[in-house]
Amino acid sequence: MNIMENAEKECAILGSLFQGIVNEMKNSSTLWEDLVSKANKMHLQLKSTIITFSLFLDAFQRIADLATNTKGATKDIGTALTRLILRHKSIEQKLKYFTNSFIETFIQPLNDCIEEWKKSANILDKDHAKGLKDYKKLRNELRKKASETIKLQKKCKKLPKHDILHNKLNSAIQEVSNYYGMLEEREKQALRSAMIEERSHFCTLFTLLKPAMELEISLASEMSHVEDLVQCLNKNTSDPHCLPLSSEQVIKDLKGIDYSTIVAFKTPPSSPGSLSSRKSSVCSINSISSSSSNSTNNSRSPNHKQSQLKQHQSQIPLPIPHQFCHLNANRTLSMP
Amino acid sequence: MNIMENAEKECAILGSLFQGIVNEMKNSSTLWEDLVSKANKMHLQLKSTIITFSLFLDAFQRIADLATNTKGATKDIGTALTRLILRHKSIEQKLKYFTNSFIETFIQPLNDCIEEWKKSANILDKDHAKGLKDYKKLRNELRKKASETIKLQKKCKKLPKHDILHNKLNSAIQEVSNYYGMLEEREKQALRSAMIEERSHFCTLFTLLKPAMELEISLASEMSHVEDLVQCLNKNTSDPHCLPLSSEQVIKDLKGIDYSTIVAFKTPPSSPGSLSSRKSSVCSINSISSSSSNSTNNSRSPNHKQSQLKQHQSQIPLPIPHQFCHLNANRTLSMP
Repeated sequence: MNIMENAEKECAILGSLFQGIVNEMKNSSTLWEDLVSKANKMHLQLKSTIITFSLFLDAFQRIADLATNTKGATKDIGTALTRLILRHKSIEQKLKYFTNSFIETFIQPLNDCIEEWKKSANILDKDHAKGLKDYKKLRNELRKKASETIKLQKKCKKLPKHDILHNKLNSAIQEVSNYYGMLEEREKQALRSAMIEERSHFCTLFTLLKPAMELEISLASEMSHVEDLVQCLNKNTSDPHCLPLSSEQVIKDLKGIDYSTIVAFKTPPSSPGSLSSRKSSVCSINSISSSSSNSTNNSRSPNHKQSQLKQHQSQIPLPIPHQFCHLNANRTLSMP
Repeated sequence: MNIMENAEKECAILGSLFQGIVNEMKNSSTLWEDLVSKANKMHLQLKSTIITFSLFLDAFQRIADLATNTKGATKDIGTALTRLILRHKSIEQKLKYFTNSFIETFIQPLNDCIEEWKKSANILDKDHAKGLKDYKKLRNELRKKASETIKLQKKCKKLPKHDILHNKLNSAIQEVSNYYGMLEEREKQALRSAMIEERSHFCTLFTLLKPAMELEISLASEMSHVEDLVQCLNKNTSDPHCLPLSSEQVIKDLKGIDYSTIVAFKTPPSSPGSLSSRKSSVCSINSISSSSSNSTNNSRSPNHKQSQLKQHQSQIPLPIPHQFCHLNANRTLSMP
C-alpha cells in the first residue's frame, strides 16, 4: 500500500530533521557557554585596558602640558598634542560605552538565554519522544483502516455507480487520508517549531550583540577623526630646526616676552672666552638657514635629533667677526 | 651709561629664558620616563587583549559554524556572522600591527631618546655655566672701554669736525658696540639652541608616534566596515518567526533535502494522541502568518524568544479537523 509507505517515509524524514535540529540545540550549549566565558574574559580585559589607556593618556597629557606651558618654542606642538589626547579621551569614553554595553546588553542577557534555550530544546525533545510512543498505536489503527478501505474498494467495483457503499468508501478514504495528513502535518509543525526555535537563538544572539556593534561603529568614527590631528601635527613637527615665527621674534628683539615671568640673574651669562665651546650654538644659524632646503630630508628621518647632530658636524661656522659686523652694522651708541 | 645697562638687561633676559628652557628639559625627564612606563603597560595590556580577543572570536566562529552547518534554517545568519567575525579577525590583525608599532617604533626609540636628551640638556647647561664665570671679566673690560669712549666723546665735542680724533671715537664706539653685540648674539644663539633642542624633543615624540597613529587610523577604517555587516545581519535577524524561503520549501514538500544525509528512524514519530501537548507547534502557523504584520513590534523587542512565547500564549489554534480537511482536500488514495 503505497500511500502508507510514502507517508511513513515522509514522516521519518521530517522526524529525522526535527531530531537533528533538536540534538544540535542540545549539544551546542557547551559552545554557547564557551562564548559567554570568552566574552566575559574579553570584558575584563577591556576594563583593565581602559584603566591602562587612561593612565597612559594622563602621562601623555603631562608631556603635552610641558610643551604648551614651556618658556620655549613648542606651544603650537603642545596645543596640537593636547587636541590629539582629547580625541583619544573621547575614544576612551566610547570604549567605555562599548565595554559596558558588551557586558550589560550582550553577555549577561545571553547567559540567561542559554538556560532558557536548554529548557526549550528539552521540552521540544520530550514532546516529540512522547509522540514516538503513540506512533505504533496509530500505525496499527491506520493499517486496519487502510485494509478495510481496500476491501471496500474491491466490493464497490462490483456494485452499480450510485450504490450507497460508494459513499462509505469515499468517507473511509477520506478518513485514512485525514489520519496520514494529520500525522504528517504534526511532524511538519514540530520541524517548523524546531527551526524557528533554533533560528530565534541566532537572531537573539545578534539582537543582543547589536548595541555593542553600534558602539563599535561609533568608536571607529571617533578614531577616524585622529587623521586630521595627525596631519596637523605632521605640519607642526616636520622640521624641528624651524622655530615658529613668534619664537624667532622673541630671539630677534625680545618683543612679545612677558617680562613679569622673567627672573633676571644676578650674574647674567656668557663670555667671548667660552665661544669655542659653543660652536654648535653658532652653527645652528647655518643649520636653520639650510634646514628650509633640507626639510624634505629631515622629515624622512625618524629621529630629528640625529639629523640635527649630523648637520652640526658637517657644517663649518661662519667667521664670527664678519657675522657680528653684519649683524651690528646699523647699531649706534646712545650716550648719557 | 644706558647702552651698558640695556645690553646687560637684555642678556639677563635671554640668559634667564635659556636657563628656564634648560631647567624645563632637565626637570621633565621624570615625566618622559613616566610616559614610557605607562606606554609599556599599555603595550602589555594590548598584547593580552589581542590574545583574549582572538579566543573570543574563535568561540564566536564556532557559534557561527553551528548556524552555517545546521540542518535547520540558519545558514544565512551563519554566513553573515562568519563575515562579521572575519572582519573582526582583520581588526585583530590591525590591532596587532598597531601594538607592534607601538613598542618598536614608539616606546623603545623614545626610551633611548630620553637618555640622549638628558645628556644634551646637561651639555647646554654646563656650557652656559662656564660662560657665566667669564662674564665678570668681560663686564669689567666693557666698562673700561665704555668709560674711555665717553672721555673721547667729550674731547671730540671741542674739536673741529674733521679732526683725526673723530675717527678714533667712531672706531671705539664700534668696538664697544661689537663687544655688546657679540655678548648678546652669543646669548641669542644659546637661547635658539635651547629652543631647537627642546622643540626637537617634541618633534621626535610625534615622529616616533606617527607610525602607530597611522596604524590606528587604518584600524579605524577596518572597524568602520563593520557597519555594512551589521545592517546585513539586521535584515537577516529582524524576524525570527519568518523562516527563509528555502526552509519553508523543505517543510512544505521536502524538496531540496539531501536524502543521503537523512537517517530514517525505525519508529518515526508522532501520534494524534499527543496532539494536545503540541499546541505550540500548531500555533506557530498562526504566529508565522501574523508575524509579517507584527514584525515591526518583534524587531523592537531585544529578546525574540520572549515575544515568540507571548504570541504562542495569546493565540488560539485553528480547529484541527477543519485544518486537515482543507490541507488534504485534493489528496487521493493510490491503491495497489
